Amino acid sequence: MIADTRTNAGIDNIAVFRKLKIVSEPGRRTLAIATSGNLSVSQSVISLLAEGVENPETGELETLESQPTMFKAAQLVGRAVREVWRVDGASLEQMTARFDVQLLFGGQVAGGRVRLFMIYAAGNFIEVTPDTPYFQIGEHKYGKPILDRAVTYETDLYDALKIGLISMDSTMRSNLGVGPPIDVLVLRKDALVPELDFRIEPNDRYFVDLRERWSRALRTAHMEIPRPPYGANVPGDVEG
Amino acid sequence: MIADTRTNAGIDNIAVFRKLKIVSEPGRRTLAIATSGNLSVSQSVISLLAEGVENPETGELETLESQPTMFKAAQLVGRAVREVWRVDGASLEQMTARFDVQLLFGGQVAGGRVRLFMIYAAGNFIEVTPDTPYFQIGEHKYGKPILDRAVTYETDLYDALKIGLISMDSTMRSNLGVGPPIDVLVLRKDALVPELDFRIEPNDRYFVDLRERWSRALRTAHMEIPRPPYGANVPGDVEG
Repeated sequence: MIADTRTNAGIDNIAVFRKLKIVSEPGRRTLAIATSGNLSVSQSVISLLAEGVENPETGELETLESQPTMFKAAQLVGRAVREVWRVDGASLEQMTARFDVQLLFGGQVAGGRVRLFMIYAAGNFIEVTPDTPYFQIGEHKYGKPILDRAVTYETDLYDALKIGLISMDSTMRSNLGVGPPIDVLVLRKDALVPELDFRIEPNDRYFVDLRERWSRALRTAHMEIPRPPYGANVPGDVEG
Repeated sequence: MIADTRTNAGIDNIAVFRKLKIVSEPGRRTLAIATSGNLSVSQSVISLLAEGVENPETGELETLESQPTMFKAAQLVGRAVREVWRVDGASLEQMTARFDVQLLFGGQVAGGRVRLFMIYAAGNFIEVTPDTPYFQIGEHKYGKPILDRAVTYETDLYDALKIGLISMDSTMRSNLGVGPPIDVLVLRKDALVPELDFRIEPNDRYFVDLRERWSRALRTAHMEIPRPPYGANVPGDVEG
């Protein structure tokens, strides 16, 4: 899971906020949430999950740590989103702000599979499958072409991380609302503890090198393709 | 200038429409308009320009052919956009459709420079400069990273065409609303006649080859970048 840290309320109001939240009880569960959209909404969702979401039937406060499966945990995140909507949604809309939030929720609970969900503002969610082995939230378009071409269900974990960083780089170059540092989590199947939990700073040597190499590779790649052979004055539909 | 030909009113209602209009009087002027947005709006703008836009001061009908400079011609296109807004804007909004149109307008009038403008729905416009030597309209994000990295003001015309086609390919792969055939215009400085006016069909041999080579190049490019060196269990901010 990869998350940038930039938030903005206009281009003259930019700040750094961590958007990758990790909850780990080594050997029992490792869960992670990445957020995009309205920061007040996503922070409220995270805070609510930490304090506990009330179960409407039992009245008990439920947390991610108390969920027996990833599916149940994803449902709980969805309920937290709906609860924030219930409290803040109407007021946000009165101020013409949108209740705009999307989350990636992934991880593993002992005894279950590693699962990755994308959770929408309505609290509903979808899950990664072999056909579509990745999700993006937030500003996703600039960085999608490389993911579509290079990431499969069989991709090595650190190749996937590398390609994810290339994708992030493309996004950061084109949208000032996405920026470093970048938080990274690698979770290996059945490890039940983060294998890598790292913040890549803007001057990180590997990341700077990756950005330069990728730019150079793109420039070289197109040079190796022949120029279009389409001749001069091919009949077309010029109108005089 | 490169334009796809796909329009849609929902994914179950897809059609082919030419969106690249060329007006050429060889030796005197060659102008071209590419459109995006609501097809009824852009077609009305094109039709109005063909019939003539009334000059509010003289009452005369003005066409692109009657404009002495590219700047004046761009203003005329802007006036055509405003005229369509005046006639259709309110009704569109009543039906919750947006008055959504963007145009590229470029070319050369004898005695003037080659110029390229991007014209907005309000009829205002901006012009390409050496710092920003290209414009995109419509679905622009997927295809922007390669343009940003590979196109400069000094890029050879047919290299630029090639890079433009790569950019289009990235867009078509990610957005079903963008599709072949692709119309292409190459206009060389002071030629005052199209050097290339060509429709690239979906099975065009060069374009199919370009798509395959580019996909392969992207996959190879990332393989030549080393994997991230970030070690296991780097101290981070795991919270239990």
